[in-house]
Amino acid sequence: MPVKIITKISLCQKHVDSLRKQGRTIGLVPTMGALHEGHLSLVKKARGENDTVVVSIFVNPAQFGPGEDYKKYPRAFAGDKKLCEKEKVDIVFCPAAGEMYPGKDLTAVNVEGLTDKLCGRSRTGHFKGVCTVVSKLFNIVKPHTAYFGQKDYQQFLVIRKMARDMNFHLKLRMCPTVREGDGLALSSRNRCLSPKERTEARCLHRALESARYLIKTKRVSGAGLIISRMKAIINEQPGARVDYINICDPETLEDVKSVKGKVLVGLAVFVGKTRLIDNVVIS
Amino acid sequence: MPVKIITKISLCQKHVDSLRKQGRTIGLVPTMGALHEGHLSLVKKARGENDTVVVSIFVNPAQFGPGEDYKKYPRAFAGDKKLCEKEKVDIVFCPAAGEMYPGKDLTAVNVEGLTDKLCGRSRTGHFKGVCTVVSKLFNIVKPHTAYFGQKDYQQFLVIRKMARDMNFHLKLRMCPTVREGDGLALSSRNRCLSPKERTEARCLHRALESARYLIKTKRVSGAGLIISRMKAIINEQPGARVDYINICDPETLEDVKSVKGKVLVGLAVFVGKTRLIDNVVIS
Repeated sequence: MPVKIITKISLCQKHVDSLRKQGRTIGLVPTMGALHEGHLSLVKKARGENDTVVVSIFVNPAQFGPGEDYKKYPRAFAGDKKLCEKEKVDIVFCPAAGEMYPGKDLTAVNVEGLTDKLCGRSRTGHFKGVCTVVSKLFNIVKPHTAYFGQKDYQQFLVIRKMARDMNFHLKLRMCPTVREGDGLALSSRNRCLSPKERTEARCLHRALESARYLIKTKRVSGAGLIISRMKAIINEQPGARVDYINICDPETLEDVKSVKGKVLVGLAVFVGKTRLIDNVVIS
Repeated sequence: MPVKIITKISLCQKHVDSLRKQGRTIGLVPTMGALHEGHLSLVKKARGENDTVVVSIFVNPAQFGPGEDYKKYPRAFAGDKKLCEKEKVDIVFCPAAGEMYPGKDLTAVNVEGLTDKLCGRSRTGHFKGVCTVVSKLFNIVKPHTAYFGQKDYQQFLVIRKMARDMNFHLKLRMCPTVREGDGLALSSRNRCLSPKERTEARCLHRALESARYLIKTKRVSGAGLIISRMKAIINEQPGARVDYINICDPETLEDVKSVKGKVLVGLAVFVGKTRLIDNVVIS
């Protein structure tokens, strides 16, 4: 069966209603397209757990700030469609921006607390845009389960909080980050890197691995020391600039001064003009 | 069949899912309890249009500001239950406050534009609380149709905007205001009035009817003139104090200076310590 392409909200809702009445379970993989093996790992997981798999492809303007890369964000619909067909996706929901945001004064969904840290500090309004579009997608696709990648760890926590607070009746799954051979986390934004930048971008993973080594092997506990070692690794690359590095509680995202038990080490780094993020949970 | 009382969110979601799988339509009447004939007119409408009727009863702390009447708001569950049984309601969903708001840093749903006018000007955060709880109720009860009264006209517009923006897959119905013989709009808060205040409270309806008379019979078009006549009627009552009187576009709620075509005349008046609202649409 070829993948069904749906661009209209009302058609999608009618279709998933009829699937639900038939007792079919629905898995949603929300994406901004330019699909890579990271997305496909989510699709495979969804395929194994649901009768119907929906991939949404929507580059959401509401989650980009002014001066961010909304226009430059990679779009690759023809390739995405082929990949979805190969993975036996049932439905690709790919609305136009005007279908999702037809007017002004948009209603917004906002999570407090978790959103003022890490990426929320650098990207004002980003998580409001994420929560708003994900709420809309949940109401449009009505999934039983939705799948997200660990690379966007904070996004997962924020969406989980939003879904619980708003009583969305669904399960959320976070799946492991998929990496290139040299450790770089897969990201659609990697397509924006020049060959030189692509080489420099290895520093994110190297910095995270050095944190792991300091914590697990060297038993270093001072977060400040670990972060300064990580910064040094990033700063060795002339094209790289740290946006943030944080060592924090993996549930509350509150910074820790001293590493005890499980921590999230998260970072954002500009490589050239491209902002990349990555993280590891160390326990 | 006695009415089914559900207090747990997860039980309600499971129950409505199974109803939906059976192809049954669900009508929701969201209330804060202390039911009166206004609510019951919504229930009757829902009863006529749906296989299953759900009445939610929840005095929502999030829509009361500091210093407002959350604690004093009338509660009358035993009577409410009897009324629901009489009207053949299938389910009363009546969660405790801790079931709806278990933690802090609540996710909030906020509508812009419509919410800074009329009641939104006097009651900061009120509509954010309304939109948040109504979103939650929509996710918990999953209605095909939800029913609201015209007395809360602005609330209906705000919820309609929220539901459209968030792509809730349901219909919304606004039903006419139900009034006492002397014109007072039914409201749970009328229970808070002393006999003397109850008499004074007639002035809301009298003021609205004077606006109608000036516009329809006397062909007065100046909003300022009409409002000052209405104010005079309210101010004749020693216990009454105008909170706001607005003449505005019934879709955008923008004030009009000159009455042309359809307008909403809305007002809020304190009678003693009780704040009452009412409105008419004049075309």
